[in-house]
Amino acid sequence: MTHASTDSLLAALRWRYATKLFDPARKIPADVWDAIEESMVLTPSSFGLQPWRFLVIEDPALRAKLRTESWNQPQVTDASHYVVLTARTDLTEKDIDTWIHCLADAQGREPDAIAPLRGMIAGFAETMSCEDRHQWNKRQVYIALGQVMAAAAVLGIDACPMEGISAGGYDRLLGLEGSGYATAVGCALGYRSGEDKYATIPKARFPREQVVRHL
Amino acid sequence: MTHASTDSLLAALRWRYATKLFDPARKIPADVWDAIEESMVLTPSSFGLQPWRFLVIEDPALRAKLRTESWNQPQVTDASHYVVLTARTDLTEKDIDTWIHCLADAQGREPDAIAPLRGMIAGFAETMSCEDRHQWNKRQVYIALGQVMAAAAVLGIDACPMEGISAGGYDRLLGLEGSGYATAVGCALGYRSGEDKYATIPKARFPREQVVRHL
Repeated sequence: MTHASTDSLLAALRWRYATKLFDPARKIPADVWDAIEESMVLTPSSFGLQPWRFLVIEDPALRAKLRTESWNQPQVTDASHYVVLTARTDLTEKDIDTWIHCLADAQGREPDAIAPLRGMIAGFAETMSCEDRHQWNKRQVYIALGQVMAAAAVLGIDACPMEGISAGGYDRLLGLEGSGYATAVGCALGYRSGEDKYATIPKARFPREQVVRHL
Repeated sequence: MTHASTDSLLAALRWRYATKLFDPARKIPADVWDAIEESMVLTPSSFGLQPWRFLVIEDPALRAKLRTESWNQPQVTDASHYVVLTARTDLTEKDIDTWIHCLADAQGREPDAIAPLRGMIAGFAETMSCEDRHQWNKRQVYIALGQVMAAAAVLGIDACPMEGISAGGYDRLLGLEGSGYATAVGCALGYRSGEDKYATIPKARFPREQVVRHL
């Protein structure tokens, strides 16, 4: 397999920025979008549990409503694609069983053969309150957010993580209440507009020697 | 800028797995490690706040001690590099000021010129309890975890996210108590051992049609 060079990776990560204005006329080609979805599906998660669903909002009317729950930020309606990343609100025995069956299937084994793993996950889940489990799931979803933003950058696709949203408002509009999933964060993907002044502002990061320490 | 093809990106993301056994004899070359550190520094965060520090543990004795707080998992000592990703325990006025100064510097402006942004962040921070702010910071750290794992995969470097650790034990060993930072998660990076049976087990993910929904 050919790997990316360090230069091309860093060029992509420096090229990306939180795109504020998307070009509403430019759509991500289907094959590229397919790869972006697949990159989300491939996201690593603790124990492999994948406590998430990714909602791709295609209906323009629904996107307009979500925008009203997003401080009216235009990314919600104007980006080529808009994804709402949701987290499981709990981590139940049933969730664990579903995962154990999926894992056993992939490995061509009986679920009973991986019962020790099941016990380990269940023991871990028991140490937390329901609210803690939801928080834990939300952190897993942020791995997906990191992976999809990095994947998009590498593919030359612009993205904007959307935290300035009303999760409760989204849940209502998306019919998530009582579903076992709740909105964690949004992500708009597409192509920057030539009008986005943020595209040319220098990227600001703390100096590396402050952020990375060697012990 | 040349972008990666969808095929090469997906090949990298499928090639990666949570490496359980690293080859202790193989070290990541300095230039590649430099790019991995830079990919962490470049991680996007909400408002740009970067509420994190990344500790690269070089001291073998310290790595051995951390391993005892990690269910004795060999990745901690055997991977080429071991990083502890820490989150700020709060989001204070001082943190916000530090960021506003960094941002203004990067843009060649006076901090007063971006006072509205400062007010917006402070208003956001006020809506949360200290514990909520810590949780929020930890989620940001998981963006970094997602970005560094994706970056490593693209570069052909193996990685293992390390959640099975005692955050409190790590904080004690790393002298983090009272520092304003606390352990969120670890990440081992290096090269898989030829002995790692997990390297050849099929990757298990829920079917895409379950995980990705189009609305």
